[in-house]
Amino acid sequence: MSKNNKNFSITAQDNTSSARTGIIHTQHGIIETPAFAPVASQGAVKALTHSQVASLGAQLILVNAYHLFLRPGIETIRKLGGIHTFISWNRPILSDSGGYQIYSLSNLVKVKEEGVEFSSHLDGTKSFVSPENVIEIQQNLGTDIMMPLDNFPPYPSPSDRIKESVELTTRWAKRSRKYFLENTHNQRLWGICQGSIHWDFRQISITDLLEIDFEGYALGGLGIGEPKPQFLETIEKSCSLLPSDKPRYLMGMGYIQDILEAVDRGIDLFDCVLPTRNARNGTLFTSSGRLIIKNQKYANDKNPIDENCSCYTCLNFSRAYLRHLFERNEMSSATLNTIHNLHFYLDIFKKIRQAIQSKSYSDFKRTILK
Amino acid sequence: MSKNNKNFSITAQDNTSSARTGIIHTQHGIIETPAFAPVASQGAVKALTHSQVASLGAQLILVNAYHLFLRPGIETIRKLGGIHTFISWNRPILSDSGGYQIYSLSNLVKVKEEGVEFSSHLDGTKSFVSPENVIEIQQNLGTDIMMPLDNFPPYPSPSDRIKESVELTTRWAKRSRKYFLENTHNQRLWGICQGSIHWDFRQISITDLLEIDFEGYALGGLGIGEPKPQFLETIEKSCSLLPSDKPRYLMGMGYIQDILEAVDRGIDLFDCVLPTRNARNGTLFTSSGRLIIKNQKYANDKNPIDENCSCYTCLNFSRAYLRHLFERNEMSSATLNTIHNLHFYLDIFKKIRQAIQSKSYSDFKRTILK
Repeated sequence: MSKNNKNFSITAQDNTSSARTGIIHTQHGIIETPAFAPVASQGAVKALTHSQVASLGAQLILVNAYHLFLRPGIETIRKLGGIHTFISWNRPILSDSGGYQIYSLSNLVKVKEEGVEFSSHLDGTKSFVSPENVIEIQQNLGTDIMMPLDNFPPYPSPSDRIKESVELTTRWAKRSRKYFLENTHNQRLWGICQGSIHWDFRQISITDLLEIDFEGYALGGLGIGEPKPQFLETIEKSCSLLPSDKPRYLMGMGYIQDILEAVDRGIDLFDCVLPTRNARNGTLFTSSGRLIIKNQKYANDKNPIDENCSCYTCLNFSRAYLRHLFERNEMSSATLNTIHNLHFYLDIFKKIRQAIQSKSYSDFKRTILK
Repeated sequence: MSKNNKNFSITAQDNTSSARTGIIHTQHGIIETPAFAPVASQGAVKALTHSQVASLGAQLILVNAYHLFLRPGIETIRKLGGIHTFISWNRPILSDSGGYQIYSLSNLVKVKEEGVEFSSHLDGTKSFVSPENVIEIQQNLGTDIMMPLDNFPPYPSPSDRIKESVELTTRWAKRSRKYFLENTHNQRLWGICQGSIHWDFRQISITDLLEIDFEGYALGGLGIGEPKPQFLETIEKSCSLLPSDKPRYLMGMGYIQDILEAVDRGIDLFDCVLPTRNARNGTLFTSSGRLIIKNQKYANDKNPIDENCSCYTCLNFSRAYLRHLFERNEMSSATLNTIHNLHFYLDIFKKIRQAIQSKSYSDFKRTILK
């Protein structure tokens, strides 16, 4: 089974689940899905060089338009040749619009029909961005995949508040798409569906966005406190409503368990700070659970983090040494831990793709979740 | 011209200066001299993985017995198989005795004939180490080259204080050598000469140490504020008194200018935190001088740090991006800057060795100093 359009081709479909593998085509190369994008909000994956990120097999990184808008500024990046040239990463880059960061980091956020007024979380400087501005910003960045300005309330919120934000997100999405089509070439704009876990609203949001027509669809406003059953049900229903020949992106979700369930329901793309942030905090992922490297019990432990892992860190260094580096605040602690955690994530995704290709995803998922 | 003994062989001698190239042989491989040892006090070169350090061409790193004695503790490292196994670095390692750190970092230092009493700069815990203990510590570390406990006063100090410390250093050196010969195999113990810039005392110190007989000789207690002419004169006179078939080590000196002058006078080995510490502070070395990466003028600068440099950082990243990373406190700022600065140092040493081998060291030195 193979469905193609010019941006996305499905390469395999699991038998007993909605999991599928595919390839997203961009002008900077391909992304094999299901894919995990390491977060490089400011244009750098924390604690790693690009060379290390590429060696780990990452095909896509995520930058944040809000952070880059504030510093060093979009005009600076444009003059320097765009984001790929500026940061010197020649593989695909996805930019998040920064809506999430505006709502979560800024003070004094004022949402109007025209756009969002907010003050910088750094120095309080006031800015206003319209949906059109947000597309223009990402056009100047030159990212391969861009996301529109959206709106969503905290969880839980009353129905009328969710309804309002869904409707505003749709109106902004229309303006974004219009500006995009009139001005942008060689980039892709995906839509962000909202509606929390209320299927009535989520369904409206998806239907509206499908009518506008994007090159891919993201589920936004999830993973902010909803009960797990409703969260999974929303993903499942959403995926069945979304066209199968467009990539589907679950924004900001990073728990392996959630990822496995979301892939099962048809999600193709993920991003999260979890593996990199946890690495810096000394929380390491292993095939048998989490390992807190600062624990005293590792002080004399000659074993690698995970005996089953083939990353640079596990092939070379003991838990005792990694604990020593963490306790001494050595920067290489963050680097070695991040190499391990990202390897762990990217390796799981490789295995996910292999399992789907061999039509054994459900078995694979069960094995991992045990 | 070639002089050999089992630990050190001279491979070339410059015509018009005392500069020479050589090879230090250790059980973990060779060190081509003149050599620069990156500092890895706690068992890690700050902001780099060992793989990056090795790729840069470092043949030797320096660890600090004082830091490792305090944390994670020598018994821990011994049980884990020694320093090479513990930190997973299979090239040569030199351990500094930590005398300098005891005198400069500790509170409540009490120097007695038997040894030194000091309190940890971390938590105030009191410890006592004798010269024998310091050898035993480094024996348990298993470093390739170890240094004895020495004593020196601050600069300037009265003559009687310098005389006292030279005499104490000699008595400790004798005890260190005795303990070393009775207990240690497959490692090397070098002597540390003291005497500040007072030739009478420095001469006595060297003569005493030569009589004890070490596998190499270090000049200690320099670079702590002495006037440049006396500093260089001391190096010159010391080198002419030291046997030409043993390696000579100028401890803790890192300015390129000083290094070039010291090589000219016959020094073979250097270590310093300067390139790595400066990198983290955003001070970068270039063929045309220092570059402070946080300066506003680099905000839109597409050029690499140094057009003449072939390091990973210069081949890939602009000053504008490196400034951005520095200003954002991204960890990769420290990493990329350290790669550049260490490459710069190790490259200068490569060129130093080439210039000596082609009998053109004086010309080379003049060109660089311009």
